[in-house]
Amino acid sequence: MDLNPPRGTRDFFPDEMRLRTWLFDHFRAVARQFGFEEYDAPVLESQELFVRKAGEEITGQLYNFEDKGGRAVALRPEMTPSLARMILKKGGSLALPAKWFSLPQCWRYERMTRGRKREHYQWNLDIFGVPGVAAEAELLAAITTFFRRVGLGAADIGIKVSSRKVLQGVLDSVGVPDESFAAVAVLVDKLEKVPRDAIAGDMAALGLDESQVDRIIEALSLRDLDGLEALLGADSPALVELRELFALAASYGFADWLVFDASVVRGLAYYTGVVFEAFDRGATLRAVCGGGRYDRLLSTFGGKDIPACGFGFGDVVILELLKDTGRLPELIPDLDYLVFPLRPEMRGPAIEVATKLRARGQSVDLVLEDKKTKWAFKQAERSGARELVFVGPDEWEAGRVKVKNLASGEQFELSLKEL
Amino acid sequence: MDLNPPRGTRDFFPDEMRLRTWLFDHFRAVARQFGFEEYDAPVLESQELFVRKAGEEITGQLYNFEDKGGRAVALRPEMTPSLARMILKKGGSLALPAKWFSLPQCWRYERMTRGRKREHYQWNLDIFGVPGVAAEAELLAAITTFFRRVGLGAADIGIKVSSRKVLQGVLDSVGVPDESFAAVAVLVDKLEKVPRDAIAGDMAALGLDESQVDRIIEALSLRDLDGLEALLGADSPALVELRELFALAASYGFADWLVFDASVVRGLAYYTGVVFEAFDRGATLRAVCGGGRYDRLLSTFGGKDIPACGFGFGDVVILELLKDTGRLPELIPDLDYLVFPLRPEMRGPAIEVATKLRARGQSVDLVLEDKKTKWAFKQAERSGARELVFVGPDEWEAGRVKVKNLASGEQFELSLKEL
Repeated sequence: MDLNPPRGTRDFFPDEMRLRTWLFDHFRAVARQFGFEEYDAPVLESQELFVRKAGEEITGQLYNFEDKGGRAVALRPEMTPSLARMILKKGGSLALPAKWFSLPQCWRYERMTRGRKREHYQWNLDIFGVPGVAAEAELLAAITTFFRRVGLGAADIGIKVSSRKVLQGVLDSVGVPDESFAAVAVLVDKLEKVPRDAIAGDMAALGLDESQVDRIIEALSLRDLDGLEALLGADSPALVELRELFALAASYGFADWLVFDASVVRGLAYYTGVVFEAFDRGATLRAVCGGGRYDRLLSTFGGKDIPACGFGFGDVVILELLKDTGRLPELIPDLDYLVFPLRPEMRGPAIEVATKLRARGQSVDLVLEDKKTKWAFKQAERSGARELVFVGPDEWEAGRVKVKNLASGEQFELSLKEL
Repeated sequence: MDLNPPRGTRDFFPDEMRLRTWLFDHFRAVARQFGFEEYDAPVLESQELFVRKAGEEITGQLYNFEDKGGRAVALRPEMTPSLARMILKKGGSLALPAKWFSLPQCWRYERMTRGRKREHYQWNLDIFGVPGVAAEAELLAAITTFFRRVGLGAADIGIKVSSRKVLQGVLDSVGVPDESFAAVAVLVDKLEKVPRDAIAGDMAALGLDESQVDRIIEALSLRDLDGLEALLGADSPALVELRELFALAASYGFADWLVFDASVVRGLAYYTGVVFEAFDRGATLRAVCGGGRYDRLLSTFGGKDIPACGFGFGDVVILELLKDTGRLPELIPDLDYLVFPLRPEMRGPAIEVATKLRARGQSVDLVLEDKKTKWAFKQAERSGARELVFVGPDEWEAGRVKVKNLASGEQFELSLKEL
């Protein structure tokens, strides 16, 4: 019997769970500070929800199967399609703007590398109903607020920003037809990662010739907005929205985190506007989080479009990064009291003491077997107990218990009333 | 495109998520009060982990499939096998006793009835390393503490208690061989729910004849410990441990919740000692939670046994019950501030105000579009904001903002320092 969880997945023993809880608490706290409401959807969805036609990796990496009722289902590889489904289900009764967040576990069957497993938890923030880049700015403010909370600054993390409208402008200028846009975007995203030869066939199938690809690659090498202005013009939609986004970032106070980078396209087909991804300035890891605007996603599911943007922020890469930079907190078990019956016949009284302390909201462990005092001390240390309460026959008869503070070593007797 | 989640699964819109969070917070708070540490495991496990030979329903209801690497995997139908795997993995480095809890989502492909879906979340508390019923008493104390926190008392909820040793004693007395015990236990559990005719063949296959079944059913109709004593004797292991459990319950103060009921067997093959299930005394729903002792589970996975007991407590039935009894809390959205730029050029200042309030830990929403004041009031109401902050050009020039308390209607100006 293999004692490991399936390849690419994780167990969370109490030590690791404390860390996950610490991380999730930060995720949730930031979401609440920014006025987002939490939602969730089943980890298992209809497969059709995830299958798009743009040749994304994600559809080839589905954990999909037929259930006992013959339905094609899949573990979600990302949260956005489930979110879109829920928004559409809500229909006209949804008050806009809607700011929603979630912390789903997502599954992809893929080759594993550092910081990439077959499951991860992903903090998702999305805003529906706001067409302007004020929404993207709000998302980026939440991201940078999170980084600061866990001790990371603009010197550690950068956020590459571009817009699908940059690519749109470039594709227009080299004569790529509009209907190929989403598929070309996915392909262009791959250009950054794999040699051009490897996807030459796919490019040809989408009608891109060598010289078009050259011109696209050249445009995507741009790293400053002035260069972009020279290429597309100051009034181009891409430039207008990026300039506005940088101005808003200055008001929020996170402008120093942002880097314009025309090569950022993001691999998902559905983005339509601003796209961004946070990266470790030490550049040893893959993207820490990423997102953007997806104004036309709902119509791909047969619904009415609502302007929307959002991001996904995985738990694996950030924990690697915090570990590498020595910023993981030391989280030890903690407990208010360990209650120890000094003799078997003191079990009932010890239960009464523990029950009383618990009723006051204290965290209390109780020694459930007949053990020696030495063992109780060891157990108190292991569980991080603040105080060890001895319930012995003589003190109990006098209505008292003996308490030892384990940090100070101080020892005293308390009446049951004082407890 | 079907906008519903897969049949038998749930979306959690923000309203429903607030309720889930409320419930989970109570689950977690009680677990911490009792000194349990949280853990988690992947929702997807190797199928072999869940397949036992005792003819349990659970193995016929697996969401199982082959992954892209040809491995037989399944969504967990319960948490205990994953927990057992983790405990075995920890091996000798595990300090005993270990008190662990989790809140996993579990999946069963089954016919749906009220309070039974194809997925549910299940609060699990388990204690490893304690052989005596003091451990079961601690578990039952946690359960009753939870019920009291959410407003349910011993008049609403009963907890049926028995022991597999009762069944063991009865089977011994009618001559059923030991090796059939687990399978017979599963079958006997079904006797309570389906007509005997329907499982007559299974009973015959296990070597039970009509008269044996009659005597088992008669014994399982016992509802008082004195009757059990008459049948099995005062020194029988079943009686000794049940008497002790009731005495401990009295010390904890939850004896009035307990009901001895010999018919409680629980449908899972692995139980070896005390078994229990909580039920709605109104008797309209199925079991609210259930558990027991499973001292020999680890050896079925090829490991060394450790005494253990635990329970699972689903989220669906308890929410139905709280709803039926009018005890669901009213949970409305809440927000500290909604910040509203009175004019488009006030967007930057409004961002500064929101950022300042958020840095103080407040939950703050920000109006991201150009909207009328009337809309801002409506939005503040919808989001449950305590105060609405107006950022207007005149006040801003004087270094001030206007604040309206939405409960009192009071309106005042504050300097940025006072904010």
